[in-house]
Amino acid sequence: MPELMPAARTARESIFSVMSRLAAQHGAVNLGQGFPADPPPAFLLEAARGAVGHFDQYSPPAGLPALREALGADLHVNPQDIVVTCGATEALAALALSLYGPGDEVLMLEPVYDVYLPQARLAGATPVTVPMTLDDGGWAVDVNAVQAAVTGRTRALLLNTPHNPTGKVLSAAEQRDLVALARQHDLWIISDEVYDELSFTDEPVGLRSLAPERTFTVGSAGKRLEATGWRVGWVACPAGLAPQVVGVRQLASFCAPTPLQVAGAQALPRARQEGFYAQLREKYRVRKEWMVSGLRALGVTVHEPQGTYFLTAQHPAWDALSLVREGVAVIPGEAFYDQHDCPPGLFRVAFCKSQEDLEEALARLSRLA
Amino acid sequence: MPELMPAARTARESIFSVMSRLAAQHGAVNLGQGFPADPPPAFLLEAARGAVGHFDQYSPPAGLPALREALGADLHVNPQDIVVTCGATEALAALALSLYGPGDEVLMLEPVYDVYLPQARLAGATPVTVPMTLDDGGWAVDVNAVQAAVTGRTRALLLNTPHNPTGKVLSAAEQRDLVALARQHDLWIISDEVYDELSFTDEPVGLRSLAPERTFTVGSAGKRLEATGWRVGWVACPAGLAPQVVGVRQLASFCAPTPLQVAGAQALPRARQEGFYAQLREKYRVRKEWMVSGLRALGVTVHEPQGTYFLTAQHPAWDALSLVREGVAVIPGEAFYDQHDCPPGLFRVAFCKSQEDLEEALARLSRLA
Ligand SMILES: Cc1ncc(COP(=O)(O)O)c(C=O)c1O
Ligand SMILES: Cc1ncc(COP(=O)(O)O)c(C=O)c1O
Repeated sequence: MPELMPAARTARESIFSVMSRLAAQHGAVNLGQGFPADPPPAFLLEAARGAVGHFDQYSPPAGLPALREALGADLHVNPQDIVVTCGATEALAALALSLYGPGDEVLMLEPVYDVYLPQARLAGATPVTVPMTLDDGGWAVDVNAVQAAVTGRTRALLLNTPHNPTGKVLSAAEQRDLVALARQHDLWIISDEVYDELSFTDEPVGLRSLAPERTFTVGSAGKRLEATGWRVGWVACPAGLAPQVVGVRQLASFCAPTPLQVAGAQALPRARQEGFYAQLREKYRVRKEWMVSGLRALGVTVHEPQGTYFLTAQHPAWDALSLVREGVAVIPGEAFYDQHDCPPGLFRVAFCKSQEDLEEALARLSRLA
Repeated sequence: MPELMPAARTARESIFSVMSRLAAQHGAVNLGQGFPADPPPAFLLEAARGAVGHFDQYSPPAGLPALREALGADLHVNPQDIVVTCGATEALAALALSLYGPGDEVLMLEPVYDVYLPQARLAGATPVTVPMTLDDGGWAVDVNAVQAAVTGRTRALLLNTPHNPTGKVLSAAEQRDLVALARQHDLWIISDEVYDELSFTDEPVGLRSLAPERTFTVGSAGKRLEATGWRVGWVACPAGLAPQVVGVRQLASFCAPTPLQVAGAQALPRARQEGFYAQLREKYRVRKEWMVSGLRALGVTVHEPQGTYFLTAQHPAWDALSLVREGVAVIPGEAFYDQHDCPPGLFRVAFCKSQEDLEEALARLSRLA
């Protein structure tokens, strides 16, 4: 048989699948993969049940007009600049294939959301990572190090705020400096803001407002509305560039699921009006506090997150493989490192799980501490 | 701003979108884009309404186990060899990115389902087309011409049966010869069989059974169950290759919509058991007969399809742009030609529309005849 292409040849089961499999095998509480334990809000479910049977055929590759309108209003962006995708993952893939190719470099921060690396390589480009720094104040971006990593081949800066896995929210100063750097070197900015409604700080999220001419903002209805399996995401493009991104995304999956787009178009304005995001944020803030203090009480070093439903922590004697055997699945920090050393004993905990699961996990971990 | 990649730079609105827009503008009956007028079957809708609220989070990138099982049973394939995708479009994209790259050539037949060309180019490969022949017996494949187009760089043969736009079903002899050719030159076969349940002939559809070691069969729940907007498709891979294809498709959209996969897992066996496909086939056979004789009565040369819900026809004095102004939208034949001349006056008619629409279209066309 002919040889497969590198993307297929080097394909591996993701660490998230591996850990979920091990979790099932060992009867472990699964604080690994980042999907919420709670169901989506009733108003989203009702909207979907109503849409099925009425909106079942192809929608435009750019997205259902009603959803683009709803997103435009929510994000304060011209609906014409929005492209709806099958989840944020597809938005990131379409951007990778639109913005860089062989010979190009893409800058990203480490720890890195794992999918960025193979997507850049799929496009033929080289991902170049800059390590985030870690001290008593938590995770930070060394903008000088990012600056030093720019070469004549750098095409884009791929950022993520609030950040998976660290929960770091870029400070206003970091945002300003990174945008200035992108301007200076004429780089695209891809800002993955799928956790935009899950920031516990007052720092503004939204790099697009600082550099609308070069920033693509990626979002996810799955993350906002606790429906990660629905596959409705989006990208807000610099003015005039949406048709080009549509051209690529229509080759990927043609369009996002129509009935779920209809549901999104109805639910997104309602979520805003009815204070759903504020409730979501408060729910996870409480679970975060609880988990941070629970872990600290066990002697674990916790880097308190400023957003998302993840936290990173370190313990010199623990590693993910032995923890899962003891009944708690987490993701090893190494899964988020490619070109730099992972801080020793780092692991990621997803706290978007039920209070009972979190309590059970802490109880099991306390036997190890 | 940095330059965009070729796939984005050369992006154009698809002819299907253009014609649908013109159809709306001119109040035309839309026999252009291939989505059915009828709703999906009630058992599919019920299954989806039941799944929403219970299966809302990520599913494995390879597909929901229950759906892979159902497809395995339906297709007589090991479920482990099946990969579920966001529609057949994504299956085709993942295969393009898995099987060929820069310097490679991919053979396909013209007229060609338009998306194959840019997908091959997105992978960096060169699509090479071989024209189908057209005579009184209808559309046929000149296997010698295909043979002559093979070079040392050819990696894959991308086939489609039943074929869009012609409705051609590959004969048993054509299948045998094409498979022999693929074996001789060690080519992958991608067999796009999204209209597998819509063949009006007795010729068997299913190239995989002839060359299981090299054939990837692409299918679509959207086409089978009249739900083109649901975005559930699949590919059945040669034994052992699914994990590699999963590796690529998980970079594209991570997974297909979970609640709609659950619905598919329930509906696909039911569709088979309850004779839904036989009814579907009969419904479209009747509309086809009606449309073929109606067009012939107007002096149009119709190449009667053996499958799908499309037909191709020719009329020396008609072209798609003037027809839409007269109130009937069809797709110009040129949309399916890239490297060879389109037969003069060729156009594609989608007859998956309501009987009233088909009658109205014929009435309007009769004023031109
Ligand atoms: C930072 C980040 N970006 C993108 C995604 C993918 O989002 P979606 O499920 O909408 O594809 C995730 C999912 O975990 C994520 O954490
Ligand atoms: C030949 C062919 N292949 C693939 C597709 C895409 O199918 P899906 O809607 O499942 O992506 C179509 C849709 O028209 C088609 O005609």
